[in-house]
Amino acid sequence: MIHGEFLERRTRGFSDIHDLTGDIREIVGRSGVSDGTANVFAVGSTASVTTIEFEPALVRDMEEALETLWSRHMRSHHSETWGDDNGFSHLRASFMGPNITVPIHQGALVLGTWQQIVVIDHDNGPRERRVFVQVMGE
Amino acid sequence: MIHGEFLERRTRGFSDIHDLTGDIREIVGRSGVSDGTANVFAVGSTASVTTIEFEPALVRDMEEALETLWSRHMRSHHSETWGDDNGFSHLRASFMGPNITVPIHQGALVLGTWQQIVVIDHDNGPRERRVFVQVMGE
Amino acid sequence: MIHGEFLERRTRGFSDIHDLTGDIREIVGRSGVSDGTANVFAVGSTASVTTIEFEPALVRDMEEALETLWSRHMRSHHSETWGDDNGFSHLRASFMGPNITVPIHQGALVLGTWQQIVVIDHDNGPRERRVFVQVMGE
Repeated sequence: MIHGEFLERRTRGFSDIHDLTGDIREIVGRSGVSDGTANVFAVGSTASVTTIEFEPALVRDMEEALETLWSRHMRSHHSETWGDDNGFSHLRASFMGPNITVPIHQGALVLGTWQQIVVIDHDNGPRERRVFVQVMGE
Repeated sequence: MIHGEFLERRTRGFSDIHDLTGDIREIVGRSGVSDGTANVFAVGSTASVTTIEFEPALVRDMEEALETLWSRHMRSHHSETWGDDNGFSHLRASFMGPNITVPIHQGALVLGTWQQIVVIDHDNGPRERRVFVQVMGE
Repeated sequence: MIHGEFLERRTRGFSDIHDLTGDIREIVGRSGVSDGTANVFAVGSTASVTTIEFEPALVRDMEEALETLWSRHMRSHHSETWGDDNGFSHLRASFMGPNITVPIHQGALVLGTWQQIVVIDHDNGPRERRVFVQVMGE
């Protein structure tokens, strides 16, 4: 069985972190799959998908850690060439990676108690962000 | 065909790296799958899964590289808010990501000769760590 | 349906970035899969797979960002122990991760307009690099 859906989020950029866990649980429920995998993929080259304990203090830590590594004020050949000022967004996204795949076992996503699935939008301003969730299994 | 199993490891934390390749090969063997994928997922928000040449010198390099990026002594909003002192563990885990998916081709995991599948436990002390391996294919 | 193929690239090392998107589209076409996933996995412990906007300025930014984090001149226990001088290559590869899994929906890879699938060869010289693409679905 294969069941895919897009999720959409209105994001503010600069590594804005959104919890998708509830929506993904609903998609898995609609899929009818009790054992398999849920592939979660960020569409576009300036966003990432990972897991995190989704609580405000840690969300702030993650945004600051990304700012430390690749600052929004860094110079980049990309920004200088294209004038779109988001070289840092691309670096953050490509480093963290566009997707994770989460197992589904006995009808539930296999996740720790404090482990949420998130999309991180690294772009340099508000936008609409799409994530595709592909559920496969039996 | 779908076959899932949990693996468990007693870890010491601070990015303790454990080779899971042998155990995953056995799970693939029990699954009966000769072509497909093995999804390897760390349960919890303070561990990662990746591949590495699993030899002691490089394992030490990786632990030191993680310490350089996000030191166990770093200040974090997470640690200050919750008092659990493992903000660095969460950052390391979310950056590296909770899972990889390894292809299975003609009865074997597709891996380089010096490429092992590992779980890295970033938490700030010894614990029991669980990894789920979901094998899918034919 | 399951369909797997190896891709090969002659690479120059030091985080040489190659666009695989066209070749992966062709593999998906040959697979006959219209809904499912394409797992893209770098064979070996000194390469990564991710997505990026594949344009020369950003490719240079990524190479420089990797050089900043783990310089080709860094000292490592791995290089000192084995004399193969590629400790930095292993660190870059294990951090970025060996694979991504891209959804296939209604006959096409789900990708942003400026989002390409790339292999990054971090090794310390020219070599032949292999990537395995496992397409699964219906």
